[in-house]
Parts: sequence; C-alpha cells; structure tokens
Amino acid sequence: MTAISMYKISAPIFVQFLTSLSAVLDKAAAFCEAKKIEPSVLLNTRLAPDMFPLIRQVQVATELAKNGAARLAGVEPPRYEDKETTIGELRARLANTVAFIKTLDTKKVDAAADREITFPLGPTNKGQMRGDDYLNHFVLPNVYFHLTAAYAILRHCGLEIGKQDFLGAIPLKVT
Amino acid sequence: MTAISMYKISAPIFVQFLTSLSAVLDKAAAFCEAKKIEPSVLLNTRLAPDMFPLIRQVQVATELAKNGAARLAGVEPPRYEDKETTIGELRARLANTVAFIKTLDTKKVDAAADREITFPLGPTNKGQMRGDDYLNHFVLPNVYFHLTAAYAILRHCGLEIGKQDFLGAIPLKVT
Repeated sequence: MTAISMYKISAPIFVQFLTSLSAVLDKAAAFCEAKKIEPSVLLNTRLAPDMFPLIRQVQVATELAKNGAARLAGVEPPRYEDKETTIGELRARLANTVAFIKTLDTKKVDAAADREITFPLGPTNKGQMRGDDYLNHFVLPNVYFHLTAAYAILRHCGLEIGKQDFLGAIPLKVT
Repeated sequence: MTAISMYKISAPIFVQFLTSLSAVLDKAAAFCEAKKIEPSVLLNTRLAPDMFPLIRQVQVATELAKNGAARLAGVEPPRYEDKETTIGELRARLANTVAFIKTLDTKKVDAAADREITFPLGPTNKGQMRGDDYLNHFVLPNVYFHLTAAYAILRHCGLEIGKQDFLGAIPLKVT
C-alpha cells in the first residue's frame, strides 16, 4: 500500500489549482480586451451582494493556501497586503504563492498529521485542529470554495471556460 | 507520524459535505415557504446559461462522490436515475449517497492508493489514474466544485447561509 502523505495531498494540489486559476485569469484579461470591457468590472463582480467580488475570492484562495501550507510546515506564512487592483497583480500574487509553497519542506509537512495546529479564526477567536483534520476538513474545502467561486463569477460574466480550465494539469490518461 | 489513509480523506469528507448540503437544501425549502417562492425556481437557477442548474449540481455532486468512493472500494457504484424534481427528492438522494458511502470497506479504500482506476470520461472516452491521484486531483476537486456551485446558486437567490453552512460539522475547537 502506497502511503498517502500530507505533503502530497496539500502542496501539489495548491500548486495545480492556483496555476489553473492564473491561466483562467489570463483568459479573462484576453476576454476583456476582445470585448472592450474594463477588467475592473469583472474583478468587482459578485454572485450575491454579500459575497466577495472576484478580486477578493482570488485573494482569499491564495491567503488560505499559503497560510494552510505554511502552518503545516511549521513556518510563519508571508504577509500579503491585499492591495491588488488588476488582473496582472492577482496573477503575480498567484505566482508568488505557488513559489512560496514550493519552498516548503516536504518532511515537515508530512510530519504535521498529528500535530495540533492553532490558527486565527476571525478577528478575535482561534481555531485548533489536528494537522490532518485542518488540511482535509478546513483548508482544502475552503480553498476549493474560493477557487470555484472565482471560476463561477467569470462564467457568470460570460467567459468561455470549462471544467478543464478549473482542473488544470491533472495526471490523467485518456483512452 | 500518523498515517494518512485513503479512506480518511474520502468517505468521511463526502459524508460531511453531502450532509451539510442537505441541511442547506432544508434551509432553501424553508426560505421558499416563507417567501412564497416556488422551489422549482431555485432548483432551475443557473449562474450562467451554460452551467448546470441547482438540481443538476446536486445530482452531479452525489454522482461523483458515490462513483469515486465505490471505485476506490472496488465495488460497482449504484445507478441513479436522475429523476429528482423536488428538494425532498434531492435530500433523499443525498441521504442515500451518504448511507451507501458508509457501507464501503475501509481497508479496501485504503488499499486503492496505488491501484489503477479506470472510469468513464464523457460518452465514449475512458480516464485512467492511480487511486490516490484519482481521489486528490479528480474526485475531490470535482465534488467540491459542484457543492460550491450549488451553495453559490442559493446565495445568488438570496438564501441567508454562510461559510459554516457550507463546511458543516468539522472537528474544530474554537477558543
């Protein structure tokens, strides 16, 4: 039985999906140019008045991925200033997050399964979970939530993308 | 180091999220009743003309979860007829899927990490992936995608739900 490692189900997954989101944003930039749409229109679109707009969905997805991965590796996550206002700046943020995640120590992430992880939960509370629960019941679902919301906002705006754009490069053999 | 098992990162995750989706649909039913809205309006709402409506998002999320879990366990997945037309019928489908997933053999799912999984991909193609890749790069992201889309459609329709409704019962200690 091949062992499933904490690293394998976190870092490469984040890298795969943050990379595919960057490619989707690149398609969104081309769409804006072709249709003479101001990119800020897309970046400020929300699916509901009390949901985050696209720009914040991308910020939160990267925030959760870099914080989650850093805490599993036992290192301090880099702080982001959340000042992005353009598609180019969001793509740079995605690239920086992917680059940061790739620096993390595989063995330290693997060793985090039964370590207690404490993390800020809102402005005053703290959450505490075992490393494997933190990854599988909190970080991954939350990252996927914001990735999907970003994708759905762009579909809602008319961008022609499909499930393959969401998934990105997966180790799949088609016959 | 606690071993991460294939079972632990699949079956209980599906159970958690299909259960929380069922509770969200229950809130949607109460919302329809309070606002005198025909539930079929919500069930047929889409975020884009070429995306699935709510009813199909729920069908696909359950389809992917039961097929994914069954293939990892090496058993034939039950066939669904996709005939649901009401919130009650969708909640029954979610409950049936949760009940089916709970019958699967933990050890067989755990042993699937390095087994090749072959699955239908569209009407004519077949996909082939190693069990751990199939779960982490295909089944989980796809299930989360359709769960989030279902949730986002309901937010778009004005249902007052939050991230906690999406996540459901997670093993989290708040201090």
